[in-house]
Amino acid sequence: MSDNTQEYLVQVHTTTTQNTIVTPLEEVVTPLDNTSSKNVSGEGRKVVSEKKKIVGVFYKGNEYAKLNPDFVGCVEGALGIREWLESQGHQYIVTDDKEGPDSELERNLPDAHVVISTPFHPAYVTAERIKKAKNLELLLTAGIGSDHIDLKAASAAGITVAEVTGSNVVSVAEDELMRILILIRNFLPGYHQSVNGEWNVAGIAHRAYDLEGKTVGTVGAGRIGKLLLQRLKPFNCNLLYFDRIRMDPGLEKEIGANFEEDLDAMLPKCDVIVINTPLTEQTRGLFDKDKISKCKKGVLIVNNARGAIMDTQAVADACSNGHVAGYSGDVWFPQPAPKDHPWRYMPNHAMTPHVSGTTIDAQLRYAAGVKDMLDRHFRGEDFPEQNYIVKEGQLASQYR
Amino acid sequence: MSDNTQEYLVQVHTTTTQNTIVTPLEEVVTPLDNTSSKNVSGEGRKVVSEKKKIVGVFYKGNEYAKLNPDFVGCVEGALGIREWLESQGHQYIVTDDKEGPDSELERNLPDAHVVISTPFHPAYVTAERIKKAKNLELLLTAGIGSDHIDLKAASAAGITVAEVTGSNVVSVAEDELMRILILIRNFLPGYHQSVNGEWNVAGIAHRAYDLEGKTVGTVGAGRIGKLLLQRLKPFNCNLLYFDRIRMDPGLEKEIGANFEEDLDAMLPKCDVIVINTPLTEQTRGLFDKDKISKCKKGVLIVNNARGAIMDTQAVADACSNGHVAGYSGDVWFPQPAPKDHPWRYMPNHAMTPHVSGTTIDAQLRYAAGVKDMLDRHFRGEDFPEQNYIVKEGQLASQYR
Repeated sequence: MSDNTQEYLVQVHTTTTQNTIVTPLEEVVTPLDNTSSKNVSGEGRKVVSEKKKIVGVFYKGNEYAKLNPDFVGCVEGALGIREWLESQGHQYIVTDDKEGPDSELERNLPDAHVVISTPFHPAYVTAERIKKAKNLELLLTAGIGSDHIDLKAASAAGITVAEVTGSNVVSVAEDELMRILILIRNFLPGYHQSVNGEWNVAGIAHRAYDLEGKTVGTVGAGRIGKLLLQRLKPFNCNLLYFDRIRMDPGLEKEIGANFEEDLDAMLPKCDVIVINTPLTEQTRGLFDKDKISKCKKGVLIVNNARGAIMDTQAVADACSNGHVAGYSGDVWFPQPAPKDHPWRYMPNHAMTPHVSGTTIDAQLRYAAGVKDMLDRHFRGEDFPEQNYIVKEGQLASQYR
Repeated sequence: MSDNTQEYLVQVHTTTTQNTIVTPLEEVVTPLDNTSSKNVSGEGRKVVSEKKKIVGVFYKGNEYAKLNPDFVGCVEGALGIREWLESQGHQYIVTDDKEGPDSELERNLPDAHVVISTPFHPAYVTAERIKKAKNLELLLTAGIGSDHIDLKAASAAGITVAEVTGSNVVSVAEDELMRILILIRNFLPGYHQSVNGEWNVAGIAHRAYDLEGKTVGTVGAGRIGKLLLQRLKPFNCNLLYFDRIRMDPGLEKEIGANFEEDLDAMLPKCDVIVINTPLTEQTRGLFDKDKISKCKKGVLIVNNARGAIMDTQAVADACSNGHVAGYSGDVWFPQPAPKDHPWRYMPNHAMTPHVSGTTIDAQLRYAAGVKDMLDRHFRGEDFPEQNYIVKEGQLASQYR
C-alpha cells in the first residue's frame, strides 16, 4: 500500500442528483443504432447522421482516473460517451495536449467536425485555428463560459458555439461562499499553524470576522450570482448586486439584495466583492489598479468567474500593500497558470486551480448535457435555446 | 517595513453589530463611582461593592495585540475592562500562564474572587484548584462552554459558574459551514497546488463534490446546531438532527430538518456529520472506534464543539484508513494542542487552533457580556437566566 492509498478509498459520497439542472446521463439519450440515417418518428424529419470526427480536450486524470467511476471529466473518462459515439461510427479523439502547432489538438483540427472543451483546461480556439479547421461545425463547452473561443471568428465561419448552461452553476456558487468564509474567518493561517505544530490564536483572531452584518456585493447577478445571494441570505449580511439588468422586484425581494446601478458607487460600500460576470470585451481587465483603488481598504475579493477580468499585477500589488486583505478564486489567465504566476505567491490569497465547476456532480451534469447536444446535432435538431453562445452567426446577448 | 507589515494594514472590515445577541460594550454598563457601597434607585436594594480580585486567563496577543483596536480578547486587550474595574478599586490580574503550581493563575488563586477564562485558552479549574481558592465566588466563561471547570466541585463549593450564552453562536455556526464546504469541495489539495507551482485539476476534482443533494446530520441541535441548519437550508441538502429534545414542529418545518431519535440510526445515513453537543459526562469520548465505524465509509466530520467528544486516536486511524474522508474542527484536547497531537498530521484534515468563537465580532460581544455580569455581581443582582451553568449548587440542564 502506498502512502497515498488512503486517499483513494473515499469515493463513497452519494451523488444524489436532487435539484440537478439536466437529466441524469442515462436518461438523456435514446439509444441510436449504427445505421447512418433513419426516420425519426412523429415529425418524419430526415436525419443525416454522417460519421463525424469529434475532438475532446480535457484535463488528464492520470493516477486519479480510475479512483472514481463517476470521474468522467478527465481525458480518460472522456465524458463517458466514447462507447456511445464509436458505436455510431463516429471518431472520438480525446487529449489534454492543446498548445502549439504540434499539439494533438492542432494536428486533429483540419478534419474535425466538433471540438469539445472545458473552462478547466481550455482549448484556446483562436481565429487562426478556426481557419485551419475547414470541417468545423460545432464547438461545445462542457461547462459554462466560452471565452476560450474567438467568438467573432467562429460566428464569421458559421460555426455553432454552445455550452451546458446551468450545468455547474450550483457548484460554482457553493464554492464562492466557501471562499468568502475562508477569507473573512482567516482560515488558512490557522490551518498552517495546525500542520506546523504551532498554537497562536491571536495570530488568527486579530483579523478574523463574522460574515454576519458585513456588506457583500456581487458584480453580476446572473445564474451563479443569484444562487450565491440565495445562499448568503441566512447569514444576515447587507447584500448588494450590480448588473446590466435589474431583477424583477419579486425576485429581488425574495433574494433580499439591493440593486446598484453604478459599479463605482457599489465598490466602496463592500466588505466582500464577488465577481460573477462573464469575460467579454467589456469585462476584460475591468478590475485594474484604478478600479481596485475604489474598493474599501481591507476588501476581500472572490473571483470564480475568469482570471482575465482582473489585471493580474494590480491584484498582486493590492494584496501586497494591504488594500486588498484577501483574494480567493479558482480562475487564472492563462490556464494552466504558469509556475511564476504572481497570484501563487501574493500574501493573503486562497487560490486553487480551476475546479469549482468540475465537481463530480457537475461533471455528470455537463457530460449529460454534451451528450444530449451531440445527439441533437447528429439528428439535426436544435439545442435548448439557453445553451447557444453563437447560433447562425449571432452572439448570445451577454457576449455582445 | 517588515515582510509581514502588509498583514497588519487590513483591520478595516466594518464590525457592524447587526443581529448581535448582547448590547454593544459601551451601552451595557452604567458607570459606577468609586464608593464601596451605595443605594440603587427604585428597589432600594443595598449594594455591597467590596474590592474584589479578578483573574483573567486569555491567550496572548503578542505582536498582534496592537494591530486592531477591537482585539479585546487577548491578554493585552483584557476584554477592554481594566480601566473600568480599576476605577472601582478592584484588582485585575490578566495572564496566559495557566499550567502547573508555579503558573500566574495558580499563584493568584488563593485570594481570587473571580476567575474569567475562555474556551480558546482554557484555565482548567480542577477540584484541587477550587480547594486552594478559598475566596472564589464566581467563574465566568468569556464565550460558551464551561467544561474546563470541574462543575461538581464548583457546585459543592458554592461557586457560581456562568458563560456569555449566545455571544458567539453565530461565529461558530458560520465557521462550521465553512468547514463542511472545505471538506466536500476538497479545497486544501487545490490550495497546496497553487502555492507549490502545480496545476493538476484531476488531483482535486476526482474527490470534490457539491454539497447540494447530500445528507448532513448534526449531533445536537441547540443554539449553534439550529443556526447551522438555517444556513444550510438554501443548499438543498437532506438535513437531519439528533438531540435529546425534539424541536417544536413549526420550527422544525421552518428549518427543514428531520428529527432522528437514535444516533446510531442517523450516523450511517450521513455524508457529513457535524458535532454540536456540549462536552459532558455523556458525550466525553462518544465518538470512539465503534461509533465511527457506524458512520458511512467516506463520511466527512466537522467538530467545533469540543475535542474530547472524540477519541483522538480513533479519529486519526479512521482518517488514515479512509473510513473518514475528511475531518475539520477547531477543538482539541488538551488545548493548546501539543506539537505531537496526531490530528496535526493525519491525512485529509482541515484543522485550526480553537478560534471559531473568537472572531473580532464575537470578542466584542463576549467582552460586553462579561462586563455586564461582573457589574451585576458587584451590585448583587442576578445574571440573565440562560447564562448560568452552576447557580446555587444546581447544574444547568445540559450538564446534568
